Amino acid sequence: MIIVMKPQAKPESIQKVKNLIEEKGLVAHISAGTEVTIIGVVGDKTLLQDQNLEIFDEVDKIVSVTESYKLANRKFHPEPTTVRVRDVTIGGGTLVIMSGPCAIESREQLLATAQAIKKAGAHILRGGAYKPRTSPYAFQGLEEEGLKYMQEARDLTGLPVICEVTSLNAIEAAVKYVDILQIGARNMQNFYLLKEAGKTGLPVLLKRGLSATIDEWLNASEYIISEGNPNVILCERGIRTFETATRNTLDISAIPVIKEKSHLPIFIDPSHATGVRAYVKSLSLAAVAAGADGLMIETHPNPSCALSDGPQSLTFDQFEELTGEIKPMARLLGRKI
Amino acid sequence: MIIVMKPQAKPESIQKVKNLIEEKGLVAHISAGTEVTIIGVVGDKTLLQDQNLEIFDEVDKIVSVTESYKLANRKFHPEPTTVRVRDVTIGGGTLVIMSGPCAIESREQLLATAQAIKKAGAHILRGGAYKPRTSPYAFQGLEEEGLKYMQEARDLTGLPVICEVTSLNAIEAAVKYVDILQIGARNMQNFYLLKEAGKTGLPVLLKRGLSATIDEWLNASEYIISEGNPNVILCERGIRTFETATRNTLDISAIPVIKEKSHLPIFIDPSHATGVRAYVKSLSLAAVAAGADGLMIETHPNPSCALSDGPQSLTFDQFEELTGEIKPMARLLGRKI
Amino acid sequence: MIIVMKPQAKPESIQKVKNLIEEKGLVAHISAGTEVTIIGVVGDKTLLQDQNLEIFDEVDKIVSVTESYKLANRKFHPEPTTVRVRDVTIGGGTLVIMSGPCAIESREQLLATAQAIKKAGAHILRGGAYKPRTSPYAFQGLEEEGLKYMQEARDLTGLPVICEVTSLNAIEAAVKYVDILQIGARNMQNFYLLKEAGKTGLPVLLKRGLSATIDEWLNASEYIISEGNPNVILCERGIRTFETATRNTLDISAIPVIKEKSHLPIFIDPSHATGVRAYVKSLSLAAVAAGADGLMIETHPNPSCALSDGPQSLTFDQFEELTGEIKPMARLLGRKI
Amino acid sequence: MIIVMKPQAKPESIQKVKNLIEEKGLVAHISAGTEVTIIGVVGDKTLLQDQNLEIFDEVDKIVSVTESYKLANRKFHPEPTTVRVRDVTIGGGTLVIMSGPCAIESREQLLATAQAIKKAGAHILRGGAYKPRTSPYAFQGLEEEGLKYMQEARDLTGLPVICEVTSLNAIEAAVKYVDILQIGARNMQNFYLLKEAGKTGLPVLLKRGLSATIDEWLNASEYIISEGNPNVILCERGIRTFETATRNTLDISAIPVIKEKSHLPIFIDPSHATGVRAYVKSLSLAAVAAGADGLMIETHPNPSCALSDGPQSLTFDQFEELTGEIKPMARLLGRKI
Repeated sequence: MIIVMKPQAKPESIQKVKNLIEEKGLVAHISAGTEVTIIGVVGDKTLLQDQNLEIFDEVDKIVSVTESYKLANRKFHPEPTTVRVRDVTIGGGTLVIMSGPCAIESREQLLATAQAIKKAGAHILRGGAYKPRTSPYAFQGLEEEGLKYMQEARDLTGLPVICEVTSLNAIEAAVKYVDILQIGARNMQNFYLLKEAGKTGLPVLLKRGLSATIDEWLNASEYIISEGNPNVILCERGIRTFETATRNTLDISAIPVIKEKSHLPIFIDPSHATGVRAYVKSLSLAAVAAGADGLMIETHPNPSCALSDGPQSLTFDQFEELTGEIKPMARLLGRKI
Repeated sequence: MIIVMKPQAKPESIQKVKNLIEEKGLVAHISAGTEVTIIGVVGDKTLLQDQNLEIFDEVDKIVSVTESYKLANRKFHPEPTTVRVRDVTIGGGTLVIMSGPCAIESREQLLATAQAIKKAGAHILRGGAYKPRTSPYAFQGLEEEGLKYMQEARDLTGLPVICEVTSLNAIEAAVKYVDILQIGARNMQNFYLLKEAGKTGLPVLLKRGLSATIDEWLNASEYIISEGNPNVILCERGIRTFETATRNTLDISAIPVIKEKSHLPIFIDPSHATGVRAYVKSLSLAAVAAGADGLMIETHPNPSCALSDGPQSLTFDQFEELTGEIKPMARLLGRKI
Repeated sequence: MIIVMKPQAKPESIQKVKNLIEEKGLVAHISAGTEVTIIGVVGDKTLLQDQNLEIFDEVDKIVSVTESYKLANRKFHPEPTTVRVRDVTIGGGTLVIMSGPCAIESREQLLATAQAIKKAGAHILRGGAYKPRTSPYAFQGLEEEGLKYMQEARDLTGLPVICEVTSLNAIEAAVKYVDILQIGARNMQNFYLLKEAGKTGLPVLLKRGLSATIDEWLNASEYIISEGNPNVILCERGIRTFETATRNTLDISAIPVIKEKSHLPIFIDPSHATGVRAYVKSLSLAAVAAGADGLMIETHPNPSCALSDGPQSLTFDQFEELTGEIKPMARLLGRKI
Repeated sequence: MIIVMKPQAKPESIQKVKNLIEEKGLVAHISAGTEVTIIGVVGDKTLLQDQNLEIFDEVDKIVSVTESYKLANRKFHPEPTTVRVRDVTIGGGTLVIMSGPCAIESREQLLATAQAIKKAGAHILRGGAYKPRTSPYAFQGLEEEGLKYMQEARDLTGLPVICEVTSLNAIEAAVKYVDILQIGARNMQNFYLLKEAGKTGLPVLLKRGLSATIDEWLNASEYIISEGNPNVILCERGIRTFETATRNTLDISAIPVIKEKSHLPIFIDPSHATGVRAYVKSLSLAAVAAGADGLMIETHPNPSCALSDGPQSLTFDQFEELTGEIKPMARLLGRKI
């Protein structure tokens, strides 16, 4: 931690800060510059957490030099994390494709989708049983009935299944039926939910919030891991910007940034990022090329009648065409698929 | 709802859309322009909610002409809502000031703050017992113990009290002790929590999400109101932009926009919006001048040792100076305080 | 300047950075922390400007502790700047109102507006002769003919006049007719234009770019001042965010931030910030309350036929009503008007 | 164009709008809905450009259904544009790589770079002679001297050359020496400069502004094309968001969006988008996979001493490694390189 003093800070102001640091058992290194004096703080900075040095006399600003997340930080855990879900390994050089409908609408829809995506080469089935919708008047999901269809789809196809959870109730139901819990973008900083998901021990796919920085996202993952659950998968699904041609702006740079800052695997969801079916293929290929560990892509037997997010869903034929293009690119890049 | 066809859309594509609309019992008005044809849809558009017309052949885009929120919409409820909390009336021409610490840290801290803000003219005591913190290693709040101190502070001063709730557990505890529930920015789209808060019947202060549009915010309020609870107070606390001189960017325009689009009262929280104590006075006066129904301002007996958000908290003297400037301005503008 | 090394940086990497700093004639203070080592650099950092220390081995990041703008910086020039324009003093406790049409359309329109705003209490006439328009097919301005009308309006009313300039040609014409040059938001980082405007010695009103940080804005002002022209007026006119209810988001916090970081006067343009006439009054009052040195407000004899930005322009009656509300508030706050 | 009336708009308000439209020679189609009435306007909407219907009584909003750009619009020009620069064809299925230093610093630096990038497979040499820098105290470029070195580098290697222009002066100099003019992000809406660049007839690479929507970017290209110059190349270089891990956020979705909306070729500049050398490879591969027509990548003989943007520049070895990975991927995707 570095404390930057204001220009012409009085010696007594500097001394007062130095004294406080030393009283707390830390070491203060003072560099008196031509314009400003800076104070480098050495030691365990949590000892200072009840001190707001920003508002001490003549302190200009405080600069952090270390990240607040530790368990998710590559600096302290250099090896990439792999997450095992039944027969599927996420991370570590494989490319994993999750697919399925935004919302589970019926047993028939889900089973047909599961079979179609398996045939096209997907590895995991996604489907929403608890839908967080902007308006209370939109379809809110089949809840536990939907989870049962997910289990049936897994029994039919062998594909592991993933569902979003939006409350402790939903977690308690989901653990009975699914292999991976998903925390959606709107709940990325629902810290209570993160802790409860962490406690289940199930792998958790954590979507990035619409306006979350990468730093906040990794701090959110820390809530899950610090419950003793290292099986976290990150998923970038578009951030909010001023651009309106797409629903959100896919932050493709998140892939190399996460690879540098963290050891957790990172997925890309091009369906939610754009909201437009026609852009999904282009962004899926980009994600693979950029080094994503996996993709989450929406599919539906009949997108024009989907109860949620139909305009971004692929038909089965479109999905099969897409996986047909993804595979040779992934192999060219040395990825297992 | 308006459907815009692509240029040179074939007559059969247009007819197909028209047929679908009519099959659903709605009326389609076709305007064939020189470049494009548009189809105006007349009738109850919820009949079309399982149809994704965007992906029909040669449909270019769908334009909504009505808002999805109804109960919060001024068009259908022109009179401003007032919310009664014990002796305090929120909305309808008064100016209400809430103040207190970001986090409740101790009985002494809270009682001292309650007495100081009352003396300075505040109307409601705020204080956080459940703290949503970016890092799991930061102070997370005193929970129910903190709520008890809030009740004690109310008994001592007569000020109604408001606390943030972050889970169903927290709601169940809070209803026993507090007068207003607060839903924080990070939970604005935690729809499960909104519904549970709505069910309590207590007034709910709903903060705007960091990257929520005003439209989404009003839709979130609809989740509370549609549980039969009309006592919603909106609170703008800064949105996320590229600017880094302040923690967030206070969207002061939200005041006139909300006044036009909704009948709900709107508060401003300049403390969280800026994160900097020195800017709080300027923005508080601006909020009153722009027509806000109230302010939420952080105070602390000793901001340099506050466990949460100290750098933005006012001392008691600073708060008293601020209310001393707010009152004559509010009166000049014809507001009751 | 502070150099933060990576965790476990090798001593020779640290030494290499230290050597380079010392070779350049600066002093390096090393603080070896438990996690990372930081190096404080003392001396004239421009001596390092051809060195990209970020990419030296094991350097994690570089943190600036001083701003790159000097002439606009309050730290080195604590007294507020006042700008004298004929009889009008901008800055230093007065409140100055500029008003007029977005685009000059005709002699009649401009003269009528000048007389109406003078009667309502405005101090300076604005009007656009060179219009930067998103589409090449929109009205682009009357150019020099418009400038002549401005001069005539000044002769008629005594009000000083301000016009936007968009090229060296426009500057060369404008200096013959107007009292203040305006650099628009889209040209805030047209550094060539800034320098040319600086050279004229005329006061320059510099609008903030749509996505410019306050730091970049002050650096842009530095281009003008460093040409020997201290007469710079800043003008906040809304920044670009995800919100669509207003055309831009007025960053009202820019007022206290600029007051802290700079000595230059700051104006607010609520007309361009919102794009909606109905919100102008609310934001004008907010700007005065927050401490703005002035306002720039669009007016038009008949907004429904304005060639540019009619929807945000006030009629003369609306403007007179607005100034009638602004004056008592300004006086209550101790401002001269 | 669609005019949406307010709920319960009076028949006379609707009639007044209808009359105006018909007086102007257009046709008004009225759809009276259950909640609101909408009016579809058929005909040449430029006839209405001096009418601000938004502020007519009881008009709620105006919705455009057609884009304001025409010459850049794929709807009216379905075939992709190809731009010929000496022996290089841009667009139409090839992949073109531009590379070189951010700023031209010396003859030696530029010639060495030209030879190195040619050897690695680049097609066009970039180099900045007029540098728009945030601070007036940073290196501003060699100007015409730099242009002469560009010409010499072309003579030496046969590579066509591209330089940024920032003023009419710079254009007048550049046309004597270079093959492509570049308009930088900060000047994207410097409409005067766009028109002057258009008039030269030289190909123009137009970078997207930091906070420009895709719609505004295409409108800016329209300024160039409407001067009779169809040789426009678009270049996405990152937009401004709240994320700070990268200098800007590369909007990878711009590739499929531009391909749908326009016929112009689109390049990606991963160097400026991220500002971090370590992320350039990942984003370059992503851009190719997403369908970009080309890349612009910064290289420097010794990035640690570059006068501008060194931290994002690749060494020659890194660049050669990158082109070695790009080529097989491009070929797999059926691209010529």
